[in-house]
Amino acid sequence: MSSSLVLHAVPGIPMVEPGDDLAELIIAALEGAELSLQHDDVLVLAQKIVSKAEGRYAYLNDIEPSAQARELAEQCDKDPRHMQVLLNESREVIRRRPGVVIVEHVLGYVHANAGIDRSNIRSDDDNPRLLLLPENPDRSAAQLRDTLKARLGLSVNIVINDSAGRAWRNGTLGFAIGTAGFEALENRIGEQDLYGRPLEVTEVAVADELAAAASFVMGQGDEALPLVLIRGAKLRPSSDGSKALIREREKDMFR
Amino acid sequence: MSSSLVLHAVPGIPMVEPGDDLAELIIAALEGAELSLQHDDVLVLAQKIVSKAEGRYAYLNDIEPSAQARELAEQCDKDPRHMQVLLNESREVIRRRPGVVIVEHVLGYVHANAGIDRSNIRSDDDNPRLLLLPENPDRSAAQLRDTLKARLGLSVNIVINDSAGRAWRNGTLGFAIGTAGFEALENRIGEQDLYGRPLEVTEVAVADELAAAASFVMGQGDEALPLVLIRGAKLRPSSDGSKALIREREKDMFR
Repeated sequence: MSSSLVLHAVPGIPMVEPGDDLAELIIAALEGAELSLQHDDVLVLAQKIVSKAEGRYAYLNDIEPSAQARELAEQCDKDPRHMQVLLNESREVIRRRPGVVIVEHVLGYVHANAGIDRSNIRSDDDNPRLLLLPENPDRSAAQLRDTLKARLGLSVNIVINDSAGRAWRNGTLGFAIGTAGFEALENRIGEQDLYGRPLEVTEVAVADELAAAASFVMGQGDEALPLVLIRGAKLRPSSDGSKALIREREKDMFR
Repeated sequence: MSSSLVLHAVPGIPMVEPGDDLAELIIAALEGAELSLQHDDVLVLAQKIVSKAEGRYAYLNDIEPSAQARELAEQCDKDPRHMQVLLNESREVIRRRPGVVIVEHVLGYVHANAGIDRSNIRSDDDNPRLLLLPENPDRSAAQLRDTLKARLGLSVNIVINDSAGRAWRNGTLGFAIGTAGFEALENRIGEQDLYGRPLEVTEVAVADELAAAASFVMGQGDEALPLVLIRGAKLRPSSDGSKALIREREKDMFR
């Protein structure tokens, strides 16, 4: 059986401000692009717009760095206030070297700089600010799904993606930090290959594959577009969010 | 500017045997699916069909395991002959534990089991065989690109993908082991964000994003389809292959 998948980068999402209603912005952007949402579509949102709508800013002038933050700033050649924000967002510093800090985020992701973003953020010189990850991206995704269902009468799947580096390979790649509506990690245990043998690969990170695909499309225009509509994905319904994608610390050989 | 990307899983690739002409199989499959190749399309091939066409089999009965292979087999609860094949394909064993061996492949990838595959392989019980990665996937990709250009008069981009686990996150994900025609790692140094500041993220693993997207589509049908046509990707021409995606050992903090 053949399958195809279509991804549209959706233009028309304005600069998002704290308190903005993302569902409303998304519905307007889709209408403006003459794209009508269908049942089982996937919407992929760049983390930035979710964080901005949630007002997830930290203002550096409000931050008093601890001794630990000062030490980390020294080791990594960074602003101590920035390192304090990073420590507040992290469970553990996993690797450090000049210019790079890799942490386990409080949400469980191993992520350079705890996913904290300085680019594309309007900041006056007087009080620069950082943008943090959403407080609970699975919850944000689930709420958006519920709101779209209430307003449009349609069940869509949601992915919130971010772009980050990884071990062993150069370059950043989109990955899923929050999902709603589907199995983020598909368990194929018990399925068989063409010869009737059990599949060797038993868990597939489908949410990350979709997040990576959307990240590619987001970066394709003259400027990055933070919303991608994916049509044609066959996903397994689930209300579990994306936590299954995070490897438990004790099973991780690369900490 | 809006962008869209379309991915087609192409049915009709038969069981591939050593010596098969992949370009011919691909042209026939595309015709059978009424898909006509266009300039700048991307074709993503599952590593398996490239390896099979190249006859990259190792027959276990031909293998005499070394002391090192026997020790590794003991530690990891694997067949010593299988471990000998793995060692032959590897520069270094990076992590080992029962059921898992993670190596640096001779081609530079950090890869569980050196990318060696046992599933979907026809093997009589008398002499089971393993399927290795292509000898030089960038070369395989470049040759296929050249052959398609000679036969069809069209320049297409090629990705050979494989699916593998990674650090920190559960589930497998498609990634690029060979590319031809485009910049696998896009360098965006010097580009600016919406506020005119230099972008923080300066290298994007576009080949891996396409490989992950294709891997999703390959797994969507009733059986895995090993060929995906991607249309609409804006890529930067390059003849450098995929080596830039591999982080140099001395820059890698997770070995």
